[in-house]
Amino acid sequence: VNTITCEILSTGTEIVQGLYPDTNAQMLSRRLKDLGIPVQYHTAVGDNKDTLAVALKIAHNRSNVVVMTGGLGPTEDDLTREVVSRVYNCGLKKDAQAVKMICEHFTRRRIPMPESNLIQAMVPEGCIPLYNFMGTAPGFIIHEKEKNKTIITLPGPQREWIPMFDGPVTEFLMAWFPTGILFETLVLRTINVPESKINDQISTLFGAIPGVTLGLLAKPGKVDIRITANASTREETVDLLQSARKKILACIDSKSVYAEKEDATIEETVARLLVNQRLTVSVAESCTGGLVGKRLTDIPGSSAYFKEGIIAYSNEAKIKYLGVREQILNQYGAVSGEVASEMASGMKRLSGADYAVSITGIAGPSGGTPAKPVGLVYFGLATKDYVSTRERRFTGDREMIRERAADFALDILRRACMN
Amino acid sequence: VNTITCEILSTGTEIVQGLYPDTNAQMLSRRLKDLGIPVQYHTAVGDNKDTLAVALKIAHNRSNVVVMTGGLGPTEDDLTREVVSRVYNCGLKKDAQAVKMICEHFTRRRIPMPESNLIQAMVPEGCIPLYNFMGTAPGFIIHEKEKNKTIITLPGPQREWIPMFDGPVTEFLMAWFPTGILFETLVLRTINVPESKINDQISTLFGAIPGVTLGLLAKPGKVDIRITANASTREETVDLLQSARKKILACIDSKSVYAEKEDATIEETVARLLVNQRLTVSVAESCTGGLVGKRLTDIPGSSAYFKEGIIAYSNEAKIKYLGVREQILNQYGAVSGEVASEMASGMKRLSGADYAVSITGIAGPSGGTPAKPVGLVYFGLATKDYVSTRERRFTGDREMIRERAADFALDILRRACMN
Repeated sequence: VNTITCEILSTGTEIVQGLYPDTNAQMLSRRLKDLGIPVQYHTAVGDNKDTLAVALKIAHNRSNVVVMTGGLGPTEDDLTREVVSRVYNCGLKKDAQAVKMICEHFTRRRIPMPESNLIQAMVPEGCIPLYNFMGTAPGFIIHEKEKNKTIITLPGPQREWIPMFDGPVTEFLMAWFPTGILFETLVLRTINVPESKINDQISTLFGAIPGVTLGLLAKPGKVDIRITANASTREETVDLLQSARKKILACIDSKSVYAEKEDATIEETVARLLVNQRLTVSVAESCTGGLVGKRLTDIPGSSAYFKEGIIAYSNEAKIKYLGVREQILNQYGAVSGEVASEMASGMKRLSGADYAVSITGIAGPSGGTPAKPVGLVYFGLATKDYVSTRERRFTGDREMIRERAADFALDILRRACMN
Repeated sequence: VNTITCEILSTGTEIVQGLYPDTNAQMLSRRLKDLGIPVQYHTAVGDNKDTLAVALKIAHNRSNVVVMTGGLGPTEDDLTREVVSRVYNCGLKKDAQAVKMICEHFTRRRIPMPESNLIQAMVPEGCIPLYNFMGTAPGFIIHEKEKNKTIITLPGPQREWIPMFDGPVTEFLMAWFPTGILFETLVLRTINVPESKINDQISTLFGAIPGVTLGLLAKPGKVDIRITANASTREETVDLLQSARKKILACIDSKSVYAEKEDATIEETVARLLVNQRLTVSVAESCTGGLVGKRLTDIPGSSAYFKEGIIAYSNEAKIKYLGVREQILNQYGAVSGEVASEMASGMKRLSGADYAVSITGIAGPSGGTPAKPVGLVYFGLATKDYVSTRERRFTGDREMIRERAADFALDILRRACMN
């Protein structure tokens, strides 16, 4: 089993000041994970010699692989070369190939090169230089073989470090860890089951499957069950994942799993089901104001299953377009199962689609009453055979209530397609 | 001058695995900077007791203020309470108010509460609890007065921690650092002007106003001009900001400024203009599939100005609902100024709203031709006096084209309201 430890160290005052999120750390983590090298820590520091040295020493002490980005430019606040040479106790030398490439870079752009740029050609003695075909500063790898430690230093801009990482760095790491991919993750994405319920259902599996780590990641209304397997061969890893997957699916309501892929959305699943069965859908939206239509048409090729929808925000619009009866509106109120039902059948009739989904609710922050509080939402589904309605009470702010209502409407469609 | 040191510690396996960028750290850094507390380090660790304890000890040793997010949920991999109690050497106790709030949270949603949820009511002895009005887990502050050290522990979801931070945490920090706010930032948010143009227009102001730093932050179609002022009194800081603001507005097209507040959206401005003038709007959407309706109804109280919309994705829907003539569709194609114009006038007629906006375009990735490439979008605006159309060519993927088209439609409305 792989016991390599790895961390990422980002430099840049703009990161610790919160101007941008640290997407370099994110992208590097994904790439390292794909190579079977799990990341334990991310650290970001500003362009300051002392804090950078503190962070680099800690990283060097506790991890086998340190991947650094940023601070390799030609200016005062580019400190990486100097700090690395201090912490790793090695001199800097001018790399002839890097000098040549920096000069050529300026010649190609037909602008004179400021002498200060050549500082970027300085690399630690004994390192493996990583030449930069997209900018000027080379990166480098210092490999301390006897300590089983490595630092990989990359420039900050993504168009510069990505080709370095995907080329020579990946090659270096694969040569060092010739076993290949040892870690793999599978994600079971569930909807409309509370995190605590899933936790109870699979609690006996936590830590009980050798080589497998389970984690739960909850978002409002949704829980991802993350299964990570770690073994000495790829086949073993895949076997571990699949057997853990089966054990989990036996414990939970497997119908609540809407996707089994990282980042997969419920609308992607709905789109696939609709396209495969050559079905169409239309929407009649009140409180979601177009959000369900938007999400259904997020998917390329959505015109195959989505033709039209009505955003009936006011009572008048519900009557005028969808044929909701005024008497029903007066008797039950716009936020009621009865109105949701009429909205769905009206939309089905107008559109001729196989399914029509309706949503009417109170997204807040105002407009709630004790009997009909903020977060109360009714859903209708009209098919050729039946009209059904559902009631849900969501918590959270306006945005969250609307997102969860859209999720729920899409889930109604998903389950209808599965029957 | 303030010599406080501060760092942010994020927990979550999804962060170190690279599933998401660490936007909590980013947003916290901005807020701390606005309070005059600069951040030196960001650290992120997975949901693992040992790495979390290592990171927390380091942070506790080197910084006065540690702000932590995540790991406060009810499940096995929520470790923050336990690790904090170990590192800070304090017991945990059940907080009665937190128990009450967690129970109420489930009662409101009318679902039974799994017993395991009450673990979230455990907080360190002697802490200041931070109650959670948007979720279940409370955060807490441990203030070690004699050591001049504080840890602020917040839940991971933004809708939960933002109200805690902006309320009691900010109050606490301001009481502790009574020097007050020394840094202030003002943001001029512009739309539909290229970054390079704005850069040229204000280039002479960069570094030319003492005490003021200018920065540009570009997103597709939008550029934020960030003005940061730093002085020894609050009044001076505000004066600096206002005089820089005036200088900038004199250099750029001031009509392109749609908001003057961090994170303010164009739909908020449109909503304010519509409400102030008691105007209403309706939408006829093709390629945006409901996105413009969704964004117009993101704003609380949107029923004052938004009553209805049609998602006319197919040609048939454009004919059936909006009365677009078949001959016009055949002659010019669905993606044309002529069809955008008929969609807008049809929607105006149907709805009786003061404005009707229409959008028809090719969001891609397929469906483009040399004459009508992916990214080509037409817009219509119908008012009581006229119908106008616009053509734009956007670059980017499907999501970006749709977002930019919605931005542009909202900007058409904004400018119409300003005339």
